[in-house]
Amino acid sequence: MAERVFNFAAGPAVLPEPVLLEAQENLFEFPGIGMSVLEMSHRSKTVIDIMEEAESDIRTLASIPDNYSILFLQGGASLQFSMIPMNLVSPEGHADHIVSGHFAKVAFEEAQKIARIDLAGSTELQGFDRIPRQQELTLNPDADYVHFTANNTIFGTEWAEEPDSGSVPLVGDISSNALSKPIDVSKYGLIYAGAQKNLGVAGVTMVIIRDDLIERSKDNLPAMLSYKVQHKSASAYNTPPVFGIYILGLVIKWIIDQGGLQEMGRRNLDKSRLIYDLIDSSEFYRGHAVTEDRSRMNVTFRLPGSELEQKFVEQANLNELSELRGHRSVGGIRASIYNAFPDKGVEQLVSFMKEFERTNG
Amino acid sequence: MAERVFNFAAGPAVLPEPVLLEAQENLFEFPGIGMSVLEMSHRSKTVIDIMEEAESDIRTLASIPDNYSILFLQGGASLQFSMIPMNLVSPEGHADHIVSGHFAKVAFEEAQKIARIDLAGSTELQGFDRIPRQQELTLNPDADYVHFTANNTIFGTEWAEEPDSGSVPLVGDISSNALSKPIDVSKYGLIYAGAQKNLGVAGVTMVIIRDDLIERSKDNLPAMLSYKVQHKSASAYNTPPVFGIYILGLVIKWIIDQGGLQEMGRRNLDKSRLIYDLIDSSEFYRGHAVTEDRSRMNVTFRLPGSELEQKFVEQANLNELSELRGHRSVGGIRASIYNAFPDKGVEQLVSFMKEFERTNG
Repeated sequence: MAERVFNFAAGPAVLPEPVLLEAQENLFEFPGIGMSVLEMSHRSKTVIDIMEEAESDIRTLASIPDNYSILFLQGGASLQFSMIPMNLVSPEGHADHIVSGHFAKVAFEEAQKIARIDLAGSTELQGFDRIPRQQELTLNPDADYVHFTANNTIFGTEWAEEPDSGSVPLVGDISSNALSKPIDVSKYGLIYAGAQKNLGVAGVTMVIIRDDLIERSKDNLPAMLSYKVQHKSASAYNTPPVFGIYILGLVIKWIIDQGGLQEMGRRNLDKSRLIYDLIDSSEFYRGHAVTEDRSRMNVTFRLPGSELEQKFVEQANLNELSELRGHRSVGGIRASIYNAFPDKGVEQLVSFMKEFERTNG
Repeated sequence: MAERVFNFAAGPAVLPEPVLLEAQENLFEFPGIGMSVLEMSHRSKTVIDIMEEAESDIRTLASIPDNYSILFLQGGASLQFSMIPMNLVSPEGHADHIVSGHFAKVAFEEAQKIARIDLAGSTELQGFDRIPRQQELTLNPDADYVHFTANNTIFGTEWAEEPDSGSVPLVGDISSNALSKPIDVSKYGLIYAGAQKNLGVAGVTMVIIRDDLIERSKDNLPAMLSYKVQHKSASAYNTPPVFGIYILGLVIKWIIDQGGLQEMGRRNLDKSRLIYDLIDSSEFYRGHAVTEDRSRMNVTFRLPGSELEQKFVEQANLNELSELRGHRSVGGIRASIYNAFPDKGVEQLVSFMKEFERTNG
């Protein structure tokens, strides 16, 4: 087996080794089929089975209610920023957006190109170091939906619980914490996630949508951008990203094998606590997020000065701890530790941090 | 090496074996990087290098003039059906579409949702068995562009030469014959192709666009659907489909290794001639397309009756000749023989056809 580093990248991100090994073994010839999964028609029985199995495994894993459909689309979360208002805002209608980080803000701005969107709350003035509180939100009771971003990758904050949108459908971007803990899907009208953080590789977006919302799609929408068309054609209106869906299916099976969402939730809490505990006990490291809104997925912190941060990243690299540099827009350090990130890598990071503080603190 | 069948699928389709083997070898650990290409940040040097190298190899291979840019997008050709009019039709402007097959018709219908689109010519009444002639076209000299479909996958017809659009920018969907022969890019304003036929795997779309046309994108377009935004961010406005671009890069290198577009053109002509010659010398097999518009990529033909066609497909499968069934909308037989389809498979198909005619004719 080749030597692997610990990959703290925020996405695309580390995948489970068993998934990589199975994909590798079957890449030249899918067992019994005589061709690679990369070469198979999307109308072939094998590919249809792969897609149906991925869907049914997600249903089992996340206890998706029967009145929700699962779509596999292209264009990442960013295309959903536009598709959601295109499909879900009624004529003359409007929606509410909560802005808790960079991508939440982009989602708000992109949606405004399509329809009337009201700002229901924002923590931008606080440097996005926390999640808005329920009592800070201004929600329109007649909105077509309320949009929020479940985890803020760049700032390292996460909603511990969904905002309460009352009877208005809740739309959640869960790109960076999808299937990282148990989820009550019935609280949502629509959930979406680019796959490249917790679910697989870049190029496929999972959308889980309540069936009554599918009916809102107007008939004059571009077919590719219509939930109704994509649903009617079982995510194969045109050629779907077969390989991405295949990998996503393997990742879902891996999560099930590991013990499901309860176990993922436990592991992710434990992994992130290891780092946060060190930060809390140190005068050297300073967390970005307020304690109660800390993300279990992206741990963000600062050192005393950007030179030290630079040195930290460089020395970490030499110790096989890769991709710890914070997002270019905010600097600092970011350790992304999604489902597939191994305990051992977190332990190694914590040891490294202690040693770095000892020699540089 | 595992046993492979001959895969006549229309797309996703057969890939060059050296490409599959290289991708397989490096799937667990990209040489010297300590992680899989599936796990790498799109902002990492390795991925940026992969994308830049793919672009520069395409430039070399197809002699792309300097005033054209190459974009790697998501959503397949189908999303281009909408993006092209969104970006290229000016306010109050209009465009012309030539309808020579199924996807040409879909492109026409989808574009009509966005802007005024005029039908410049159609062979639908002829069952799409041929390409419209230049003198049959009604072209508006003030159109924002003229759209045509270079190869019609379902009907097995292909433009031997581009339509003459005068000074109006020509837009070509080359999804099913991309880089299958030399191309004079300077004749075009924009070319696009879903990768899953001649260029790689499903999930990445190559767009080659003349730089002055990029400037037409309106500022209020959704970012993901704007050529200007995608160009400005070097196809990485959001996470691009890294693996698809990586495979596309390997395919381009394979074409260069094989001798380039001249050699591809020679091979594709030779391969398709082998089958067409048999059809022409037979009373049993009947080609769908008129002789002068025959596709070198998708050879479509009928047998005397659908029961015989069914038997043909079944017996072919037993002889490791896979995916020969015609598109569900038209029936018959279709042999898709793109760049990567090996000579040996065509020879084996021709032998099989002779034997099938002998025993069933």
